[in-house]
Amino acid sequence: MRIGTLAIVGVGLLGGSVGLAVQRRRLADRVIGVETDPQNAQQAKARGAVDHIATNLSEACQADWIILGTPVDRTADLILQLAPMCKPGALITDVGSTKVAILRGLTGKLPDGVNFVGSHPLAGSDKQGPDHADAELFRNRVVVVTPDRETNQTSLNRVVAFWEALEARVLRMTPKEHDRILARTSHVPHLVASALAGSVPAEMLDLTGTGFRDATRIAAGSPSLWEAILLSNREEVLAALGHFTERLDLVRQALERQDVVALERLLQEGKERRDSLDSRRE
Amino acid sequence: MRIGTLAIVGVGLLGGSVGLAVQRRRLADRVIGVETDPQNAQQAKARGAVDHIATNLSEACQADWIILGTPVDRTADLILQLAPMCKPGALITDVGSTKVAILRGLTGKLPDGVNFVGSHPLAGSDKQGPDHADAELFRNRVVVVTPDRETNQTSLNRVVAFWEALEARVLRMTPKEHDRILARTSHVPHLVASALAGSVPAEMLDLTGTGFRDATRIAAGSPSLWEAILLSNREEVLAALGHFTERLDLVRQALERQDVVALERLLQEGKERRDSLDSRRE
Repeated sequence: MRIGTLAIVGVGLLGGSVGLAVQRRRLADRVIGVETDPQNAQQAKARGAVDHIATNLSEACQADWIILGTPVDRTADLILQLAPMCKPGALITDVGSTKVAILRGLTGKLPDGVNFVGSHPLAGSDKQGPDHADAELFRNRVVVVTPDRETNQTSLNRVVAFWEALEARVLRMTPKEHDRILARTSHVPHLVASALAGSVPAEMLDLTGTGFRDATRIAAGSPSLWEAILLSNREEVLAALGHFTERLDLVRQALERQDVVALERLLQEGKERRDSLDSRRE
Repeated sequence: MRIGTLAIVGVGLLGGSVGLAVQRRRLADRVIGVETDPQNAQQAKARGAVDHIATNLSEACQADWIILGTPVDRTADLILQLAPMCKPGALITDVGSTKVAILRGLTGKLPDGVNFVGSHPLAGSDKQGPDHADAELFRNRVVVVTPDRETNQTSLNRVVAFWEALEARVLRMTPKEHDRILARTSHVPHLVASALAGSVPAEMLDLTGTGFRDATRIAAGSPSLWEAILLSNREEVLAALGHFTERLDLVRQALERQDVVALERLLQEGKERRDSLDSRRE
């Protein structure tokens, strides 16, 4: 795995972490960061995530590889701006939490010789910005790559090799399958955590313990990033929310009817599902 | 703060932690643990949480202080069994997560000279048993004490002093107020975390990240302990669940209608509520 020039468009937490991870492993000759936020730009440079900061997208086009660490509602547009200026054979990927909307924005619009393969590292955080970036953020984490019918096999293999070089565990699936599953494992949990945090009056917060802190931690994530994720995967999120509320309603009914057997079974199933996560990895 | 003989009935995580905390601070001359589970008994003794293990409740009656670390659905009955055998002036407290049901079970039934004051340390865990007990579990944590009209002021002051000696921050409120607030800050979060864990199919768990782990951590708690908590505070939990689902429904509607402004405002409010927890303490 060897990259000539890597351009990272958007050096926030994820873009900055890609930069640090690539630099530590000496995978690229040169890393350019394209960032319009002056604080992010300065922090990414100071931490050594990038060798050089550019504010203009055209500078990214010198690169052999381009990775977008931008909000999901901006990624497709930025790729369409970049693509006509790119080197022949340039490879573009991203780190966005939803995939169908980005692919839909690109279908049939990329010039020949420019390849895009979607990626999603499951390595988010409620923290933001390159100050929290981490060269080992992707290590032992799952990264989903999402080829579709237009994806060229060589490009796919190169993107897989890239994430594996950052020590991630790569899974391949279609964009649609990715979005359907992530709606349930990530987008709905975010909505639920946010509603839980928002539903407890401020004057009761003194009587919260570590359980409430854990359950609501992700609600501290950026509202604008999450709003973009949720809207770009709206139908799957609404369907997934239906699965959650159906389950919650079973619990409510068991409690209402004082059905001890049903209540204990539901709690037991929740426990077993959660326990099985710990037996995999933590 | 000085106790002659302390009896701890039920040396699980909380009872065991009370034992360790009292021993480290040398607050009692002698600590007796009453425990029928052989493994808990052996672990509590081995860790030094108690000086002596008894399997018979009558041995607890030699004590000047008795603290019950038992499931909430058993506490009132155990106190009624203990009380007639107690020393005059004996003080009884507990660590249960709900208070109204326990108090209701005792009202008018305690013999003269035996005093009960309810306590609830907000220091739970999804872990169980004296192996996870911790002498500093109560340090800087909130302990709610719940006097009612029958509570004698001297006993209340002694129970407050006890938890303060374990370095907890003590809050006083009525049993009813306690149960109403905890339904929202603890019992509903537990139900929600459990439903969230239970609603994600096992084959999707590979695609969960740290967010899902945090949001569902408490679902690993003991189903039987939680079932007892939920049933003993059923009406308040159902009302609190109504507040949560109302909030979740606002989020769902905003997403359904693609109401960007409402969605961002709801996510922002959730974030602010959660962020305000960190500015208090972590």
